[in-house]
Amino acid sequence: MQKPNIVVLGAGYGGMMTTVNLQKKLNTHDANITLVNKHDYHYQTTWLHENAAGTLHHDRTRIQIKDVLDFSRVNFVQDSVVSIDPKQKKVKLEDGELDYDYLVVGLGFESATFGIKGLEEHAFMINNINSARLIRDHIEYNFAQYNNYKEDRPELLTIIVGGAGFTGIEFVAELANRVPELCQEYDVDPSKVRVINVEAGPTALAGFDPELVEYAMNRLEEKGVEFRLGTMIKECSPEGILVEKDDEQETIKSNNVIWAAGVRGNSIVEESGFEVNRGRVPVRDDLRTPDYDDVFVVGDCAVLFNKETERPYPPTAQIATQMGSTVATNIKLLMNGAKELESFTPDLKGTVASLGHTDAIGVVFDDKKLFGRSASIMKKVIDNRYLMQLGGPALVLKKGKLDMYH
Amino acid sequence: MQKPNIVVLGAGYGGMMTTVNLQKKLNTHDANITLVNKHDYHYQTTWLHENAAGTLHHDRTRIQIKDVLDFSRVNFVQDSVVSIDPKQKKVKLEDGELDYDYLVVGLGFESATFGIKGLEEHAFMINNINSARLIRDHIEYNFAQYNNYKEDRPELLTIIVGGAGFTGIEFVAELANRVPELCQEYDVDPSKVRVINVEAGPTALAGFDPELVEYAMNRLEEKGVEFRLGTMIKECSPEGILVEKDDEQETIKSNNVIWAAGVRGNSIVEESGFEVNRGRVPVRDDLRTPDYDDVFVVGDCAVLFNKETERPYPPTAQIATQMGSTVATNIKLLMNGAKELESFTPDLKGTVASLGHTDAIGVVFDDKKLFGRSASIMKKVIDNRYLMQLGGPALVLKKGKLDMYH
Repeated sequence: MQKPNIVVLGAGYGGMMTTVNLQKKLNTHDANITLVNKHDYHYQTTWLHENAAGTLHHDRTRIQIKDVLDFSRVNFVQDSVVSIDPKQKKVKLEDGELDYDYLVVGLGFESATFGIKGLEEHAFMINNINSARLIRDHIEYNFAQYNNYKEDRPELLTIIVGGAGFTGIEFVAELANRVPELCQEYDVDPSKVRVINVEAGPTALAGFDPELVEYAMNRLEEKGVEFRLGTMIKECSPEGILVEKDDEQETIKSNNVIWAAGVRGNSIVEESGFEVNRGRVPVRDDLRTPDYDDVFVVGDCAVLFNKETERPYPPTAQIATQMGSTVATNIKLLMNGAKELESFTPDLKGTVASLGHTDAIGVVFDDKKLFGRSASIMKKVIDNRYLMQLGGPALVLKKGKLDMYH
Repeated sequence: MQKPNIVVLGAGYGGMMTTVNLQKKLNTHDANITLVNKHDYHYQTTWLHENAAGTLHHDRTRIQIKDVLDFSRVNFVQDSVVSIDPKQKKVKLEDGELDYDYLVVGLGFESATFGIKGLEEHAFMINNINSARLIRDHIEYNFAQYNNYKEDRPELLTIIVGGAGFTGIEFVAELANRVPELCQEYDVDPSKVRVINVEAGPTALAGFDPELVEYAMNRLEEKGVEFRLGTMIKECSPEGILVEKDDEQETIKSNNVIWAAGVRGNSIVEESGFEVNRGRVPVRDDLRTPDYDDVFVVGDCAVLFNKETERPYPPTAQIATQMGSTVATNIKLLMNGAKELESFTPDLKGTVASLGHTDAIGVVFDDKKLFGRSASIMKKVIDNRYLMQLGGPALVLKKGKLDMYH
């Protein structure tokens, strides 16, 4: 009897946790497990904004896949996925093709620009290690240029962040901490630098408790961040952005526009013919696609509805990680001929938004609000917990945020 | 009786050593000493290529003027010189004007581009802290961009250095050491990177002993540097350079062109009506200008001929530093009514070109050749000796190159 082929696409939170759990649950004579990923590393998407701001080196954020997986038990293929053919049970890669018996799609997110003119071409996005590092270097390069011009060019020192959601706020918080360092490194007067957050909605951090939102905005404004709420970005150009509020338009000149306002599922999923909702597959309770019994979807490519609120769960690392565990269990059940699979229910432990260094806001467990240092410590505890699940104590020691007080 | 005003323009090697020596030789009731400089720091011009390559931080290269001079004995004016009027004995600054009784001109060098088309606009120059830091960041930014393009863009990773003189060679040597670090930082395959040195003359390091030149070129070629000798740069554009050798033309694509092939004296000197030779004033033996008994010129704005060879001495830090000492002596002599001033004779202790880290070549004292580690140590000894003369042991400890073996 031939061993079934289990193929996992993508080494993000969902794909990695699926593979780590499959590696634990299955013996090498049970199945061939193959993980496909573009790079030979996994990275913590939730830390990328720190790499982009330059407050954390990207090597702290990425983890070599070989340091976590046992390559004698898992095949690793470094390649890019081109398309999936769920009817033929094949995955087309740039440099080859794979057959599967069970497929796990964890191809992550893309930026959604909602058709805003020029955004795709002229704004930066915090999507992966390469693009986060580029943002860091782009901002630094503009600071380096500033003193080399005879005329004043304030647009070099103006940083615009589109979106005051989770990523947008965490990113401006890191920038607020980074700007004084940049001013020192490049001999720039801090009063010349502007960090502007533009948000279309009426509030920052929509969905968070208003008391927490107020705390966050006050702290960031104290550090010089300017908020433009209820303000739409109408257009992005090499010169900056055109915004509109209450029918009045204004141009803000900037050579550093970073769009952090929307994500959708990887378009490969939609292009491969899966049913999607804003690029995400509305998965069944057992995390399989509506149409295929052998295809699971995890992380940002999946959307799952909270039955109580009838609203989708947000695409978080926490949920993607938990999905990986359920998918591994369900693949083993399927292999053993089970009729009934495990239903996935997110175990929401809380949400903490970092405001940089030792500051944060958050909600944990049953709606307890946290501010400042305690929230910051909780954020680091959450991050380290993930590393523990992924790679055990050795990985926590190697890549964890261990200095709780700084 | 009114105290005479001594004004020193420029805080480079010559201006700083003049001021330090005046501060030692004169009492506050003897004269008003005023130093004018654009920045509040002095920098070691001979280390700028290391800042530009990114192998040494620019804060190691610059020295706060207040850490060296006693501001209770010397007035410091942070301003830019616009012009000098030697007949009216006035110096026009961007934000004011100064009268002098004795003037010391130490305004340093500018790049000479010999009319090569596009060089001024599209090539970078290693002229000061701002421009050196910009080169570092420009190269880093291009490395950061490389992985963000789907198509291959080798011009981002091609670095062209114009000139195989002292600065050009020292700079490519630092680049050769920096490239492996850049490849690691930006996940770039080292085989994609090119460092090309283009020199119009038939040899690198013209004037050096051929055995030393061969050693240097071999070491740099081993590290991947490509030499194009006897090759003229005809034009520089945003796309790269057009070169010509033996009547054949070739375009080399590059987004990183650094011109390190020629310097001249600051053009303010010529524009102020002083007699010049390639922007440098042919000073008398006592370092005064041919026409004015109260104006001294030091460093790169001066040219002095070696009477034995009838050739000009090269514009080095060593000579500029020694000039500063003679000028201070001569100003004191003039103030005391002396008819005869001290003649300046360079005390040439040797010349060492660094090849990065622990490698170098050089000639010291009476034509003894040095290679490798011993030359590298000698280079650091020379650098530290300057710091000792400028600011004593405290400055050596703070800014010196103290690790002789790395």
